[in-house]
Amino acid sequence: MNRVLIIGAGGVGRVVAHKCAQNSEIFEHITLASRTLSKCEAIRDEIKEKQNKSIDVAQVDADNVEELVKLIEEVKPYVVINVALPYQDLTIMDACLKTNVHYLDTANYEHPDTAKFEYKEQWAKDPDFKANGLMALLGSGFDPGVTNVFCAYAQKHYFDEIHTIDILDCNAGDHGYPFATNFNPEINIREVNSKGRYWENGKWIETEPMEIKMVWDYPEIGPKDSYLLYHEEEESLVKNIKGLKRIRFFMTFGESYLTHLKVLDNIGLTRIDPIEVDGCKVIPLHVVKALLPDPASLGPRTKGKTNIGVVCEGIKDGKKRKIYIYNVCDHQEAYKEVCAQCVSYTTGVPAMIGAKLMCEGKWMKAGTINMEQMDPDPFMEELNRQGLPWNVIEMDPEK
Amino acid sequence: MNRVLIIGAGGVGRVVAHKCAQNSEIFEHITLASRTLSKCEAIRDEIKEKQNKSIDVAQVDADNVEELVKLIEEVKPYVVINVALPYQDLTIMDACLKTNVHYLDTANYEHPDTAKFEYKEQWAKDPDFKANGLMALLGSGFDPGVTNVFCAYAQKHYFDEIHTIDILDCNAGDHGYPFATNFNPEINIREVNSKGRYWENGKWIETEPMEIKMVWDYPEIGPKDSYLLYHEEEESLVKNIKGLKRIRFFMTFGESYLTHLKVLDNIGLTRIDPIEVDGCKVIPLHVVKALLPDPASLGPRTKGKTNIGVVCEGIKDGKKRKIYIYNVCDHQEAYKEVCAQCVSYTTGVPAMIGAKLMCEGKWMKAGTINMEQMDPDPFMEELNRQGLPWNVIEMDPEK
Repeated sequence: MNRVLIIGAGGVGRVVAHKCAQNSEIFEHITLASRTLSKCEAIRDEIKEKQNKSIDVAQVDADNVEELVKLIEEVKPYVVINVALPYQDLTIMDACLKTNVHYLDTANYEHPDTAKFEYKEQWAKDPDFKANGLMALLGSGFDPGVTNVFCAYAQKHYFDEIHTIDILDCNAGDHGYPFATNFNPEINIREVNSKGRYWENGKWIETEPMEIKMVWDYPEIGPKDSYLLYHEEEESLVKNIKGLKRIRFFMTFGESYLTHLKVLDNIGLTRIDPIEVDGCKVIPLHVVKALLPDPASLGPRTKGKTNIGVVCEGIKDGKKRKIYIYNVCDHQEAYKEVCAQCVSYTTGVPAMIGAKLMCEGKWMKAGTINMEQMDPDPFMEELNRQGLPWNVIEMDPEK
Repeated sequence: MNRVLIIGAGGVGRVVAHKCAQNSEIFEHITLASRTLSKCEAIRDEIKEKQNKSIDVAQVDADNVEELVKLIEEVKPYVVINVALPYQDLTIMDACLKTNVHYLDTANYEHPDTAKFEYKEQWAKDPDFKANGLMALLGSGFDPGVTNVFCAYAQKHYFDEIHTIDILDCNAGDHGYPFATNFNPEINIREVNSKGRYWENGKWIETEPMEIKMVWDYPEIGPKDSYLLYHEEEESLVKNIKGLKRIRFFMTFGESYLTHLKVLDNIGLTRIDPIEVDGCKVIPLHVVKALLPDPASLGPRTKGKTNIGVVCEGIKDGKKRKIYIYNVCDHQEAYKEVCAQCVSYTTGVPAMIGAKLMCEGKWMKAGTINMEQMDPDPFMEELNRQGLPWNVIEMDPEK
């Protein structure tokens, strides 16, 4: 009998809880914990209504190892699914080590004070997880996560050697507002204003923000402006895909979205220091937030699809080959199923799948493990079953 | 000996005061009055420093006829130059009638509560001005003002009959900021979001906001996007230019300027109702204003030129003819001369010229008078002398 503890009750936590409940033959007991108990209770009630299944809820401060240890000892899970904030990865990993429980997350550790994200701190715990015979499955979302599995699947079935990988992430959702963000607009600004980075011939190459742009024709969506960014799965893939010569990551941004962010930034409306207005101290970004549509209102309104995939080029049986593996997710269908749109759905479903494979013993290996280090086949099968079906297209390697 | 009272100490009032002081052989005594005495004092000190000439200053509430009457009786001007706010035109006209003093303004009356501007209320005072033998010269700025004089000059010297008039207003000034406004951004938004209007074959034709756009090649500036708006001089010109078949007004707007306004409007940042932010009630537009560069800081930074003119087409001696009359004004030169950039300079100089011609008796006629009703020649001569030289281009009427 497998017990699971999900930490984090945002959009992704909601999807993980719904999907674990759908797979109750594996997850026989589910506890959902968060700093804010009421968020957990709302999700619990949704699941009761949609599936007539019961889950437990709990309150926990994920920054506090002792609180986490106490909760884990009470719940006694086989695996902790961490979908809290990225800067809480390390405390949750430590709590798992102290309680001898497997661990899974969807995004790598971020330093709370800098915009840097990297695997260094998490990989440093590899000896401890190994010594305890515990698995820490890192980055089991979509990207990172499914994109890594797509690469491993291409490697296993389509190539003798992969030379280049392009990861292509398109969100063509339309919420019908001139401008709205799922996140803090400050984070969106930072994303757009950060330098890009890709890896070629053993070296990281930095680009100016949004410097490299291409138009990619996404199946079921169409051609979209796509910009080169740095993304975290590149760090592990350059280590684990042998013979790789180049890896890049592209994400779509609409022109209007970029214009709105740019104008806000130009005028100083993304400032987070208080200014004096009408005899009050106010933070300009908070004024923008107060005016923007409530992010929670976007889910039910968002129409359209996401398409995330990888294009691999390399050699098979002495011949050039080019393969495109991708998933298309529909915002409205995702919302109908689990009350969350694709951005959360495509991250939450793979988190559940990773935990399921660990519970079933299909994926079990001691240490801190990135997705492409495991056999991709059972994961790919689950994607088709659990709502994220994928396609493989054989492309012309000369184009 | 001519005494003059200038009401209004904004950018235009500053230019009028400087230019009247430059013409002290005509304006032997100058009083500058405003609601805010300190603004008048600052201009007085500038003139002392630049020209070593003295002017008087006074405080007045231009909404209050009695206060105005009292001030006019003290100052005993030959003419009142009204460069206060457009919705104060009627009170100042009434005060002039009560004190038997000539009147001049640069912009027609605006209803304080609606976006409507028209001559109706001012023209209604025509019998009173006539009965008192007083002149009210309406719209003696650049547009309206010089543009009307250009039309009258074309009519007098170049055409037997003018069939079409296009008024073309280009401000190619660059203040070096991504976005800034001289005015309340709410007014800019209203300008851009208002329906356009032009007159053809005896009828006013309404357009969607910014619906009609053309690229016009402005001499000394180059080609610029120009949008059809309604502008107040069209109302009097359709009455006073005989044989006219069409009149239109175009103004340049940069793409980036329009984008910034549009984004502010999209997000709700032009709202003037208070919202709750960080426990405070704040008006979003005030937050934007607090963040934008101080309009007073734009003058010294603004580089480039304005070009405002009229293109008239019609018949002379049985043949088609097309004439372009325009003025080019340089922001930096205007600032050097009178501490104000072209937007104020091109309005303030014609106001002074109108008053000068009234004082000299060259333009004197009882009633409410629009510019094109007077002989254009002395005004055109003064433009060349007073810093707004003009050119006439004979264009190919078949193009």
